[in-house]
Amino acid sequence: MRAAALRSGRLVVRDDVPEPVPGPGQVLARVVACGICGSDLHFARHGDRMLALGEEMGQPSGIDLDRDVFLGHEFAAEVLEVGPGVDSARVGDLVTSMPILLGEGGMQPIVYSNTVAAGYGERLLLSAPLLLPVPDGVPAHHAALTEPMAVGLHAVTKSGIQDGESALVLGCGPVGLSVIAALKTRGVEEVVASDLSPARRGLATTLGASRVVDPREESPWGGGNPVVFEAIGVPGVLDDVLKRAPREARVVVVGVCMETDSINPHFGISKELSVRFALGYSPEEFAASLRNIAEGVIDVAPLVTARVPLDEIPWAFEALGNPEEHCKIIVEP
Amino acid sequence: MRAAALRSGRLVVRDDVPEPVPGPGQVLARVVACGICGSDLHFARHGDRMLALGEEMGQPSGIDLDRDVFLGHEFAAEVLEVGPGVDSARVGDLVTSMPILLGEGGMQPIVYSNTVAAGYGERLLLSAPLLLPVPDGVPAHHAALTEPMAVGLHAVTKSGIQDGESALVLGCGPVGLSVIAALKTRGVEEVVASDLSPARRGLATTLGASRVVDPREESPWGGGNPVVFEAIGVPGVLDDVLKRAPREARVVVVGVCMETDSINPHFGISKELSVRFALGYSPEEFAASLRNIAEGVIDVAPLVTARVPLDEIPWAFEALGNPEEHCKIIVEP
Repeated sequence: MRAAALRSGRLVVRDDVPEPVPGPGQVLARVVACGICGSDLHFARHGDRMLALGEEMGQPSGIDLDRDVFLGHEFAAEVLEVGPGVDSARVGDLVTSMPILLGEGGMQPIVYSNTVAAGYGERLLLSAPLLLPVPDGVPAHHAALTEPMAVGLHAVTKSGIQDGESALVLGCGPVGLSVIAALKTRGVEEVVASDLSPARRGLATTLGASRVVDPREESPWGGGNPVVFEAIGVPGVLDDVLKRAPREARVVVVGVCMETDSINPHFGISKELSVRFALGYSPEEFAASLRNIAEGVIDVAPLVTARVPLDEIPWAFEALGNPEEHCKIIVEP
Repeated sequence: MRAAALRSGRLVVRDDVPEPVPGPGQVLARVVACGICGSDLHFARHGDRMLALGEEMGQPSGIDLDRDVFLGHEFAAEVLEVGPGVDSARVGDLVTSMPILLGEGGMQPIVYSNTVAAGYGERLLLSAPLLLPVPDGVPAHHAALTEPMAVGLHAVTKSGIQDGESALVLGCGPVGLSVIAALKTRGVEEVVASDLSPARRGLATTLGASRVVDPREESPWGGGNPVVFEAIGVPGVLDDVLKRAPREARVVVVGVCMETDSINPHFGISKELSVRFALGYSPEEFAASLRNIAEGVIDVAPLVTARVPLDEIPWAFEALGNPEEHCKIIVEP
C-alpha cells in the first residue's frame, strides 16, 4: 500500500509498504483523514535528539532512524475488515482512536514506529477496545482533531484551574488553540492569548480567547495572577516565563521543547513558582474531546487550513513553517 | 557597635557601625546567637548575579554592593530596650523573629541590607509584632535554628505530601536536614536521604531519615514514586532529577541555585513531572518551627557543629565549605 515515511529527516511517499493484517482484537481501517502534528515536524528535525534523551532516561524507544519511520497519530478511519474475536466494530464504521495498537506483543504506539503503519498511509491497524465511533454528521477531517483537542483538555485538567481564575496562553499554534478551546469549555472567562501571528490571534479569538495580544506590541502579562500555559516550546521561552510570571504563579508547559534549554532557577525560587509539564491525555479525555467536537462545543472547522492527498505531505511539512498561512493541515490518503 | 559586613565579597568585622535606635513598635536587642546560612555564602559569592536577576524580574533590591552589606537572619536575641508604644516585650526577654523590620518606611528585610543591622552584629532592631518569646530552657543557639527549620517545614507543606507517600531528599546540608526533620514531624515514614558526605548522612539519620545513601555507591532512586526534594542547588542537579525521576513525580526545589542552569524540558514533558520552587515560610510556619524545637519534636543540637565569636565569621565562612567538618556554625557576638 502507499504510505509516507520519514527517511533521513525527510518525508518520502512509498508505494511498497506491506499491507497490514489485523490480528485478534484488531481491525484494518482505511485512513480517511489524518492531521499533521507539530510534534511530527519536531521529530523530523530532532528525532535523533529525542531518542537520545529517551535513552538517557532509561527509556529506549526501539526506533531505528536508519530505517523508515511511520508517522501520523491524529486520524479518523473507516473500518475495512475486522480481525478474530472483534464484535464491537463493523465494516464501514467511521472511527477514531488513541494512537495505540494492542496486540500479542503488548502495546505499541501508532506513531514513530519502524513497523506499525500510522496515519500518513492508506491503511492502518487499530485496536477494537480503543475504537470510538464518530457520530453521524461529523466529517472525518473534524474527527481527526479529537487527538490534538484532547491534548489541550488534558493540560487544562492538569493545571487545576479553578472557577474565577484567569488564564494566559502563550503561543497559539494548534496546542495553544486546543488549550484555549478547553479553557472555554471549562468556563474560564478571562483567557488572554499571545502570538506573533495575526492569523493565529484571529483563531485564538474564534476558539474563545477573551483578549489577544501581539507580544511585540504589548505585554501579555497583566496585573493578575493567571494560570500560564506555555505552548510555544522553543528554547528561552520557559526562562522568560519564569522571569515575568507573578509570585506563586502556576505554569503548565505543554509546548514540546526538544532542545536543551537554559533557565535561572532563581526566578522560580524567589517567586515560589510551580511548573507542571503536561503530555498526552487519558482515554476519558480523548472520548470527551470527540464529544466536544461532535456536539459543537468546540468548532474545529476554522483550524483546518488545508486538506491534501498523501503526495503533498512533504509540501505540507514545509508549509506548516508559516503560521500566517496554515494551522492544521489534514492529509486525506 | 561591632558588626560583620560583606565588603567586596569578603566578610569584615567593623567596630564603627552606628548604634541602632528603636523607633515606634520596635525593640533594640542584643544578638545572643545567629546561625550562618548557606544563602549568605551564596550571596557573598554570587551577590551581583542575584541582584541582576532581581532587576531582570523587575524587582530591584535597592542593595548597593559597593557599600557594606549586613547579613545574618537566623537569630535569637535579648531585648535591651523597647521603643515607643511597645508593650508586648520586656527588657531581658529572649526572643526570635522572622527577619523583617517593620517601620515608618514600610517593611525591610533584616538581611542583605546596606542600612539595617542584622544578626552578625552586637545589636539589631526587631519589630514588636513579630517577636516570639523563646520558651524557658531553650538555649539561644537552638532558638536561632527556628528560621532554617521553618524553611524545611514550608517546603514540606508546599510539597503537598500525603499520608502513605515516601520522600527522597537530595542533599543533606542544613536545608535538606531541615526538610528531613519536617518530614518526620509530618509523619512520613519512608524518607530516603542522599549526600556525598558521611557526616551529613549521619545527621540525616539523626534527624529522621529512614535510609541514607551515598550516591556514588548506589542510586537513591528506588522503585517507588517518592516526593523529591532537591536541596543541593548546584547547576546540573535539576536536569539530573528530571532525568531520573519516575513518571508523574513531584519535585520540590528548595536548594538555591544562583547560576543559570541547563535542563532538558523533554524529560519533564515525557514523564509529566511537576516542579515546585519553595522559598521562605509563613509566620505560622515560623512559630511552629520554634515550638518544634522547644518541645523537643526536632532536636537541633546535633546540627550545631561550632559556636564562634564575631571575629571568627570570616573563618566560619571558609570552614562551611567542608561538609565533613561543619553543618551549622553559630555566631555569638
